Amino acid sequence: MDGASTARVEDVPFVERLAARWKAGPTLLCVGLDPDPARFPPHLQGRPDAILAFCRAIVDATHDLVCAFKPQIAYFAAHRAEDQLEALIEYIHTAHPHVPVILDAKRGDMGSTSDQYAREVFERYRADAVTLQPYQGYDAIAPYLAYAYKGAIILCRTSNPSGDELQALRVATERGEEPLYIHVARLVAERWNTNGQCGLVVGATYPKELAAVRAVVGDLPILVPGIGAQGGDLEASVAAGATPAGGLMVSSSRAVLYAGKDEDFASAARQVALETRDAIERCRP
Amino acid sequence: MDGASTARVEDVPFVERLAARWKAGPTLLCVGLDPDPARFPPHLQGRPDAILAFCRAIVDATHDLVCAFKPQIAYFAAHRAEDQLEALIEYIHTAHPHVPVILDAKRGDMGSTSDQYAREVFERYRADAVTLQPYQGYDAIAPYLAYAYKGAIILCRTSNPSGDELQALRVATERGEEPLYIHVARLVAERWNTNGQCGLVVGATYPKELAAVRAVVGDLPILVPGIGAQGGDLEASVAAGATPAGGLMVSSSRAVLYAGKDEDFASAARQVALETRDAIERCRP
Repeated sequence: MDGASTARVEDVPFVERLAARWKAGPTLLCVGLDPDPARFPPHLQGRPDAILAFCRAIVDATHDLVCAFKPQIAYFAAHRAEDQLEALIEYIHTAHPHVPVILDAKRGDMGSTSDQYAREVFERYRADAVTLQPYQGYDAIAPYLAYAYKGAIILCRTSNPSGDELQALRVATERGEEPLYIHVARLVAERWNTNGQCGLVVGATYPKELAAVRAVVGDLPILVPGIGAQGGDLEASVAAGATPAGGLMVSSSRAVLYAGKDEDFASAARQVALETRDAIERCRP
Repeated sequence: MDGASTARVEDVPFVERLAARWKAGPTLLCVGLDPDPARFPPHLQGRPDAILAFCRAIVDATHDLVCAFKPQIAYFAAHRAEDQLEALIEYIHTAHPHVPVILDAKRGDMGSTSDQYAREVFERYRADAVTLQPYQGYDAIAPYLAYAYKGAIILCRTSNPSGDELQALRVATERGEEPLYIHVARLVAERWNTNGQCGLVVGATYPKELAAVRAVVGDLPILVPGIGAQGGDLEASVAAGATPAGGLMVSSSRAVLYAGKDEDFASAARQVALETRDAIERCRP
């Protein structure tokens, strides 16, 4: 028996598992799992486990093409499907143990409440990483970093039009004026990332801003939502943010999940995932 | 039959219900429901419905003393107790229908994901208001405002030490430099509050900053956590933030919930809630 091969996946840090997938794929694609029952194919409609069945089929059809899966908890919570989210993540850990799971929850709170959220995310759901809000500062991130092998991916520059209202404000810092999102990127890279567990979220709708973030954060992993349905610029984003090792989790959700409308939805999803993975690879420097 | 008296409570806007409680109490006290099973009295330990039983007893013992109840969803989610949270809010609506329920969830996302969170908060849990993150701008708030009678209470200045890292930054605006939290207060009061549904969160640890927020937001309702266990300054906060009509939801959680350790915990909670309510009243200008 080889000791290395019997090590539990959960004993390997998230960031290392992600880097292993970047290399082994090679792939920077992250498939977002945002299950909307109204868009499921007819044969799944009305099944009590429809959300789990749909997501399992997507996961089985795309696991070799992705560097991570990213279930969005709001889609489960709105349908009282927390049990299906638990079962889905358990299934990914068992059937595809080398693919890390990012729970997209954008949590933000402090003190004992953050302890409870961290417990929810890492102990109840057993996610490998979580997305978090920066507005309350390091206090709000620390309870997640207490789980030494888990990842904390912090909102920096989001892809929605109103993101400008706060994120593009120019703030006064020791080094002069800079946009708030750049200041957040620096805080995370230089102060909060004490144990190599942090990443950032930067939307694909702003490739120039992604390049500016990359310039200040070294090789920090960056989650890039907004390609596909949100119309982000894939080529410019990959050119702006990829590193020689990988550097990005380029996330696509609806374009993959709802590529097909019938019983062949999983193979249609695989086809779109494959094309997206390959398109990303062609853009890498 | 009087038409007004048969109107469903849910057909009255949150902000009006809150104002009615400010006047009828009179009370500015909000009791936060952060149930930690490890701190429950021995006779509740191990009961599968312990969280619901504990919170119901607190609610029954304090309903006439409060302007709102504020369950913190993290405490329920960490213990797989979403069903008990649903039952608790349903119970408050039925047994104490004039007390509005603020779900403290600090949600922040955009587009279709925010739609799902709004559905979770207002349709699944039937909360009357929710706490929200400002970092993604108005887009992230709009889906909640689409529920015309519900409230949206947005983080402005939080009571944790690291809150400074972003919130105290000086930002360049049309009117010159000002701290980010003041800019958020202005955005909410002047742009986002299109239908009178918004409020703000400002921690009790910063009474001077609460006064500065009050100066720019008119009579917007402000949720003030941080008295009691977090050591905020009650007298200074009430003086800084109260309006003639009320203006504040002064939130206390642990100091009330865990006032007693035995079977008399609910009456101990009532005693602390009463003292806190009265202390607030004495501080009102």
